Amino acid sequence: MLYAVVGKDPAKKTVLIYGHLDVQPADIHDGWNSEPFQLVERDGKLFGRGSTDDKGPVVGWINVLEAFRANKIEIPVNIKFCLEGMEESGSLGLEESLKANREKMLSDVSFTCISDNYWLGTKKPCITYGLRGNSYYCIEIIGSKQDLHSGVFGGALYEPMSDLVWMMSQLIDLNGKILIDGVYDMVPAVTDAERALYENIDFDEASSYQLNITHNKETIHLLKNEYRESVGAKKLMKSSKVELLMSRWRNPSLSLHGVEGAFSGVGAKTVIPSKVIGKFSIRTVPNMDIHKLDKLVYDYTDKKWKERGSPNQFKCYIYHSGPYWLTDPKHPNFQCGARAIKRVYGVEPDYTREGGSIPITLTFEELTAKNVMLLPMGAGDDMAHSQNEKIDVRNYMEGTKMLAAYLLELGTI
Amino acid sequence: MLYAVVGKDPAKKTVLIYGHLDVQPADIHDGWNSEPFQLVERDGKLFGRGSTDDKGPVVGWINVLEAFRANKIEIPVNIKFCLEGMEESGSLGLEESLKANREKMLSDVSFTCISDNYWLGTKKPCITYGLRGNSYYCIEIIGSKQDLHSGVFGGALYEPMSDLVWMMSQLIDLNGKILIDGVYDMVPAVTDAERALYENIDFDEASSYQLNITHNKETIHLLKNEYRESVGAKKLMKSSKVELLMSRWRNPSLSLHGVEGAFSGVGAKTVIPSKVIGKFSIRTVPNMDIHKLDKLVYDYTDKKWKERGSPNQFKCYIYHSGPYWLTDPKHPNFQCGARAIKRVYGVEPDYTREGGSIPITLTFEELTAKNVMLLPMGAGDDMAHSQNEKIDVRNYMEGTKMLAAYLLELGTI
Repeated sequence: MLYAVVGKDPAKKTVLIYGHLDVQPADIHDGWNSEPFQLVERDGKLFGRGSTDDKGPVVGWINVLEAFRANKIEIPVNIKFCLEGMEESGSLGLEESLKANREKMLSDVSFTCISDNYWLGTKKPCITYGLRGNSYYCIEIIGSKQDLHSGVFGGALYEPMSDLVWMMSQLIDLNGKILIDGVYDMVPAVTDAERALYENIDFDEASSYQLNITHNKETIHLLKNEYRESVGAKKLMKSSKVELLMSRWRNPSLSLHGVEGAFSGVGAKTVIPSKVIGKFSIRTVPNMDIHKLDKLVYDYTDKKWKERGSPNQFKCYIYHSGPYWLTDPKHPNFQCGARAIKRVYGVEPDYTREGGSIPITLTFEELTAKNVMLLPMGAGDDMAHSQNEKIDVRNYMEGTKMLAAYLLELGTI
Repeated sequence: MLYAVVGKDPAKKTVLIYGHLDVQPADIHDGWNSEPFQLVERDGKLFGRGSTDDKGPVVGWINVLEAFRANKIEIPVNIKFCLEGMEESGSLGLEESLKANREKMLSDVSFTCISDNYWLGTKKPCITYGLRGNSYYCIEIIGSKQDLHSGVFGGALYEPMSDLVWMMSQLIDLNGKILIDGVYDMVPAVTDAERALYENIDFDEASSYQLNITHNKETIHLLKNEYRESVGAKKLMKSSKVELLMSRWRNPSLSLHGVEGAFSGVGAKTVIPSKVIGKFSIRTVPNMDIHKLDKLVYDYTDKKWKERGSPNQFKCYIYHSGPYWLTDPKHPNFQCGARAIKRVYGVEPDYTREGGSIPITLTFEELTAKNVMLLPMGAGDDMAHSQNEKIDVRNYMEGTKMLAAYLLELGTI
C-alpha cells in the first residue's frame, strides 16, 4: 500500500482517493495484438494491461496534481491517497493495514472517491452507487498419487477429470440459472418500483451508446446488437434491456473459470490428471449473505458428490470472497461528481450499478463511516481483465479534467 | 531420426532396433521429488524424465554394443538402429521418412525389436504382442471475441466453459463406459477361449508381483490392493483380474485430459474464457476402424451439441490417431526374446498386451513385412508420462543383459 497526503489544512475537508497499481495476468500469446506490458496508441486508444484497470485513472489523479501545481491553483480539499498492489488478488492485507492505522489515516476523511470501474457504454459518463460481490470457489478432486499414462491406466481407474466436468456441469444450466439450492431465496423479488427504475434509465440523449436502449423497439434491437457484437457473441442471454441490466447489476451469476492440474497446453498430452481443481465464482447481490452462500455451495456440492458416487477424494472450498455494496446516489459527494461531469462532458451522468466487485469500497465505507462514490474514467468496451485492454484517449484526457473538477466541486460544499 | 548401421555381413540376419530420445513434458512443480531432467539414484531406482520412457532402454542397447566390443565378441546379427525424436508428438514425419528410404533402410530387415513398454508388474519380465491404439480429439467452443471479466459480463452471455464441461460430461459415465453411440459395436464380444486366456495368465511363480492374481481369492484381493495402492487410488474400476486386464488390454477406454484456453494457474482469475478446447482421447482395440471411430465421435458430439442448444460456436476434430496392433507371440523372434529372458532372469516370460499405443510398431510391421516384438526393459510402476518417472537399477542392468542375450539368440536361428 502506498499512502500519501497532499494538504493538511484543518479548515478544509479531506477526500480519500483509492486506486490500484497491480493488474491481471497477461501474455501476448493469449491473443493480444501488441505486447500487453508496453503501452501503444492506436486509433485514439491506449492499449496495454492496466491502461484502464487501474493504472490509467491513477495516472489521471497525478496529472490533476501536476495541473493544479503548474497553474498555481490551490486545491480546495486535503487529499489522502491510498494506492494498493493486491487488488487483483483479493486486496490481501489492505483491510488489516487500514484498520491498524485507522485513526491516523482515515479519521478525518469526509468523502471517498474510487475511479476503478467503467461507463455503461462508450460515450456517456456515469456514477456508480452499487456493486456485486464475488465469492470464488474451488472444487478439488484427487484420484491417484500422481498423473498417470492414459494408455497404461485408461479403463482401470475412476478418473478425477470425469468427476470434475460432471460436478461443474451441475452448477449452472444453459440459460445461466444457478442450480445451487437456495441461492435465489436470498435475492428479493423485483418490485414494480425497481423495475420502473430500470425501465426509465435515461439513454435518450445519446442514441449511439453501446447499451443505449430507448423505448423505441427498433432502437432497442439495434443497440443490443451493438453490445452483442462488441463482445463478439452470437446471442445474448437476455432479450430485453431490463432483463439484461438486471442480470448484470442486481441478480447473481455463476461463471466457470477453468481447471488447475489438468493438461492446459497447446497440442496433446495423454495424461490422466491425478488432482484437478475446478474454479468457479458467484457474483453476489443484496441480500446474499456470503457465509450463508458458502454453506449453500458446500451443501449442494456435497449432495451432488454423493449422487455422483465416485470413490475419489472430493472437497469444495472458498478461495476468497468480497460482499456486494449499495449506497445512496443522492449524497453531496455524488452531487459533486455529477456537477464535475456536467462541467467537462456537458451532460448529466447516468446512475449505474456494476457487475464486478471492488470489495475495498465496502471497507472504506465501514472504516470512514462516510460516503464512498465510484467515479469511473474508462468506457464499457475497455476490456479490463481481457486481451487488448485499452483506455480511449478521450476518456483519459476528459476523465482527468473530470477528476480535477470534482476536487473543485468538493471545495464548494 | 537417427539411423545407424552396425555390421553389414550378408551371411547374417538383420535386426532393426527402434527407440526414441524425446520425452513427455516435465516440471519440478508438477510434484517431482527432484529435478526431472537430472538423473538421481534413490533406493535402487534411477529417477528422471525419460529414465524408462525411453532413454534408459536406448542407453541399454549402446551398453550392449560396448560390452560386445570390450569383450571382443562377434555380434551374430547385423543391427540397424532407428532412433527418433518425435514419439511423444505422434512420431510426426517418421513414417514418411521410412517410406521414402524403405529400400535402403528396411529391405533387408529380418526382425524388429522395440523396447519401449513395461512389465505387467515389478518383478517378472514379459514380452508384448498387442497394443491399443489412440485417437486424440478436441472439442472447441467459442463464445466471444476475447476473454471477458466475469463481474462485468457474468449473467449476460452464454459462457463456453459451461457448454464445454457439459459436453465433456456426456462422453463417459462414472464407471468408465464410453457413451458415444456405436463404439462398442466395433469390439468383438469376448469368446470363452479368450476369457480362458486371461483366466490362465500364469502368475504362480512370483507371488509378490504387483498384478499377480492367482485363483486363490484372498491372494487376488491382496494383490489387487497392491496395484491399487501403488497408484494411490481408493478403488479400482473393475473388481476381477480378468475384467481389470481386459479393461487395459482389449477394451477401449476414454480419458479426459484437460482444457486449453481456460484459467489453469494456481489461485483465482475472474475470467470468462472466450475460447476453450477440451481434450480427450479414446484407446482403440481390435476391430475398431479409426476413421469409422472419428465419424462416430463427430456424429455423437454433433447430436449432443444440438441437444445442448447453445448459441456458441462448436467444433469437434481429431488431433492425431494411431491404430491398435496385434501379432503372433509364437514367432521365432518372440522365441529368441523368451530364451534371452530365461537366460538372464531364469523364468519364462508372461505374454502380455499393453494399454498404451506405439503406432510405429505397426509401421515397422507394414514396411518390413516381418515380425515385430516388444521386449520391455522397465517395470509396471515406472510411471512413464507421470511425475517421478524412474527405472529400477535391476531392470536397467539385467535388462541390458537381456538385450545382449537376445542378439545372441537371434544368431542361432
